[in-house]
Amino acid sequence: MLPQWIIERKRDGHALTAEEIEFLISGYTRGDIPDYQMAAFAMAVYFRGMTADETAALTLSMLRSGDVLDTSALPGPKVDKHSTGGVGDKLSLIVAPWVACCGVFVPMISGRGLGLTGGTLDKLEAIPGYRTALTIAEFLGVLRRCGCSIIGQTERLAPADRKLYALRDVTGTVPSIPLIVASIMSKKLAEGLDGLVLDVKCGAGAFMHTLADAQALAAALVRVGQSMGKQTRALITAMDQPLGRTAGNALEVAEAVATLHGRGPADVLEVSLALAGEMLVLAGVAHGETEASNLLRKQLTTGAALERFRQMVELHGGDAAVVDDPGRLPTARHQRPIPAPGDGFVHEVNAEMIGRVCLLLGAGRSKTTDAVDPAVGVSGLVKVGERVSSGAPLMVLHANDATRLAAAAELAVRAVALGATPVPPAPRLLGRERPREPET
Amino acid sequence: MLPQWIIERKRDGHALTAEEIEFLISGYTRGDIPDYQMAAFAMAVYFRGMTADETAALTLSMLRSGDVLDTSALPGPKVDKHSTGGVGDKLSLIVAPWVACCGVFVPMISGRGLGLTGGTLDKLEAIPGYRTALTIAEFLGVLRRCGCSIIGQTERLAPADRKLYALRDVTGTVPSIPLIVASIMSKKLAEGLDGLVLDVKCGAGAFMHTLADAQALAAALVRVGQSMGKQTRALITAMDQPLGRTAGNALEVAEAVATLHGRGPADVLEVSLALAGEMLVLAGVAHGETEASNLLRKQLTTGAALERFRQMVELHGGDAAVVDDPGRLPTARHQRPIPAPGDGFVHEVNAEMIGRVCLLLGAGRSKTTDAVDPAVGVSGLVKVGERVSSGAPLMVLHANDATRLAAAAELAVRAVALGATPVPPAPRLLGRERPREPET
Repeated sequence: MLPQWIIERKRDGHALTAEEIEFLISGYTRGDIPDYQMAAFAMAVYFRGMTADETAALTLSMLRSGDVLDTSALPGPKVDKHSTGGVGDKLSLIVAPWVACCGVFVPMISGRGLGLTGGTLDKLEAIPGYRTALTIAEFLGVLRRCGCSIIGQTERLAPADRKLYALRDVTGTVPSIPLIVASIMSKKLAEGLDGLVLDVKCGAGAFMHTLADAQALAAALVRVGQSMGKQTRALITAMDQPLGRTAGNALEVAEAVATLHGRGPADVLEVSLALAGEMLVLAGVAHGETEASNLLRKQLTTGAALERFRQMVELHGGDAAVVDDPGRLPTARHQRPIPAPGDGFVHEVNAEMIGRVCLLLGAGRSKTTDAVDPAVGVSGLVKVGERVSSGAPLMVLHANDATRLAAAAELAVRAVALGATPVPPAPRLLGRERPREPET
Repeated sequence: MLPQWIIERKRDGHALTAEEIEFLISGYTRGDIPDYQMAAFAMAVYFRGMTADETAALTLSMLRSGDVLDTSALPGPKVDKHSTGGVGDKLSLIVAPWVACCGVFVPMISGRGLGLTGGTLDKLEAIPGYRTALTIAEFLGVLRRCGCSIIGQTERLAPADRKLYALRDVTGTVPSIPLIVASIMSKKLAEGLDGLVLDVKCGAGAFMHTLADAQALAAALVRVGQSMGKQTRALITAMDQPLGRTAGNALEVAEAVATLHGRGPADVLEVSLALAGEMLVLAGVAHGETEASNLLRKQLTTGAALERFRQMVELHGGDAAVVDDPGRLPTARHQRPIPAPGDGFVHEVNAEMIGRVCLLLGAGRSKTTDAVDPAVGVSGLVKVGERVSSGAPLMVLHANDATRLAAAAELAVRAVALGATPVPPAPRLLGRERPREPET
């Protein structure tokens, strides 16, 4: 068997066998199959797609390229969530402790990735002292003590994915559903889970622009998870405008903390509640959405969820006092409000452009080696449907560099579209994907 | 400009600009753009194709990656031929001296490539002493003295193609018309030609299996050549059965010599005459096919063409006595006739299978580093339409290794299909491609 024969079979539209896929992935992980053959293969998959069986086999081979976490010592259900990524998405910081305080373990291993506004790890690292690079033993220790832990990827979990993802990023082969599915699921299933809830973002600021694309991705993710014996669900949520009123690392931590205090933006609360609820149902801790919702709201009112977040930060070496005093988070030198150019209703807040504003300010990275500035970003963002008066702020930019600020301010103005007619607020939950076949 | 942006644009079906293509090819040649990005790009081109303008730009960039031969000191028209490759194709050895003795310079730089039966260079190297690795100065010297020279590729001619071809070979991206066209034309136009005649093979033993595919390739080749100001023509010739009655290096040299002696197989003569005639017309040495054909036949009868071949071999350091005594060529230890299993008419001689027989015997290479055995191969091949009697030889295998011989003999039997009903001989010339637009 030569790698090019397999590339050619995929190129010609044939379905590959599990053996062929395993040959490619294991050879690639070992370094026997070079990047250039894998790049050609990925492009062939982009054009030809993969069957459900092929996608499952690819996921399994990538999962098997490394270790699977042994979570058997944790006394309770293990459920995680994963988001396909959007601007202002700080939900992991909220959902993990919230679900944990309902008796479900959340062993969350997060990628840093390349994003416009930083990933979950960058956000947590905005908390002074927070360590995302724990050993597996430390990770399990934190989980045992507070039920949740969020760390960065280790060398030994799905190494094939780390290698392949870096390659896809520079070869135009990121937007392929089977490759996305195998990448997400191989990493998540390496966490030793019982169940997984996926948050598939849809809209201008997301990877999937149309509902049909988002549904296809959600269905493929659920299919693979179920086929590997894991309870898997997906929510499709809107990502036309940013989630919440902030984007940028420390600013988003502050908003997540506010949400756990019970004073978060409505959309952040709504989507967090939906995801956390789905996780509780999957874990068997609640029977149905209503019960889950009631249980979760109670944990918010009693302060239990906030307390769990504080505990997690502490166990990770972070300054837990930020929970009561967000002023301890890094702050930027300059704050500049962006005034509305006239009276009107907010018709659009372009999530992708807000993301680019954050990138300009230094909140994200365009290369994996870029450093992220924790303090910069956007706060006080208006939401679609809101009424604004001329001169009132559409958002506030936080910057450490005057030149970057000027460039970001120019772009920021164009990110918000006002109109004379009222528009309703945009819906947040767009769909839900549950297994198609009856479960056994 | 980042390479992945260009890959993505091609992936999404856009036509690239000449600047984008130049950026890719020059960066790749310098080593700034890695193999994996080029592999993904090649696969995207496989699926999306290229416009005529893109193909021309790609050819030009690949041509400019190295030197263009300065043939201005040669006092006469410079015309070459190129074949897309087939089994038993020894026509370059015949056509080059034949055309040269009509007053046309033939500066032929040939690739070694990966083939089932060895390339033109392998065939010439079967002649004891023949050197294919001349310097450019030596090459021009041979051309000045005898009008034709056949050498191997140098480091400085179209280096982008050498790099890209090796990559395509192992990434499933060989069968793409724009990539094939740019590869052939960049190398050939680096020879400093006035005109070029292409022999596009079509059939089971060729790269292009259908007439439509062969026509598309021929049209694309002619279009690029003409757009770069070179007189370009293409013939489409059959490659269902091997060309001539031999395949294998020394055996093919002997058949080429026999043809120059005027006793070659009918098909070899017919296709050689057509190609050489087209070259003479392009060079302006003959006005039309009939005049070209008469001129060429005369050079055969007088022995001038053979004499020119002898001179070329001599100037390359080869043993010119093989022209009168083919017994001086390397011979194999074993000769085994393959007997016909019954009476009948030859319905098929599968060129590809005969190629694999030769490969098994050691005449070709599966890796670029493989050594080729000059002596082995197949002779005395029957042709489609011929009548055979039970036990009469369908071909004779020439081998140096008894084990390889046994395996080859098994395959050889299956390469020939006999039938009870007579069939006509297969046509050799299937089409002709001339420029579509009126010439200026």
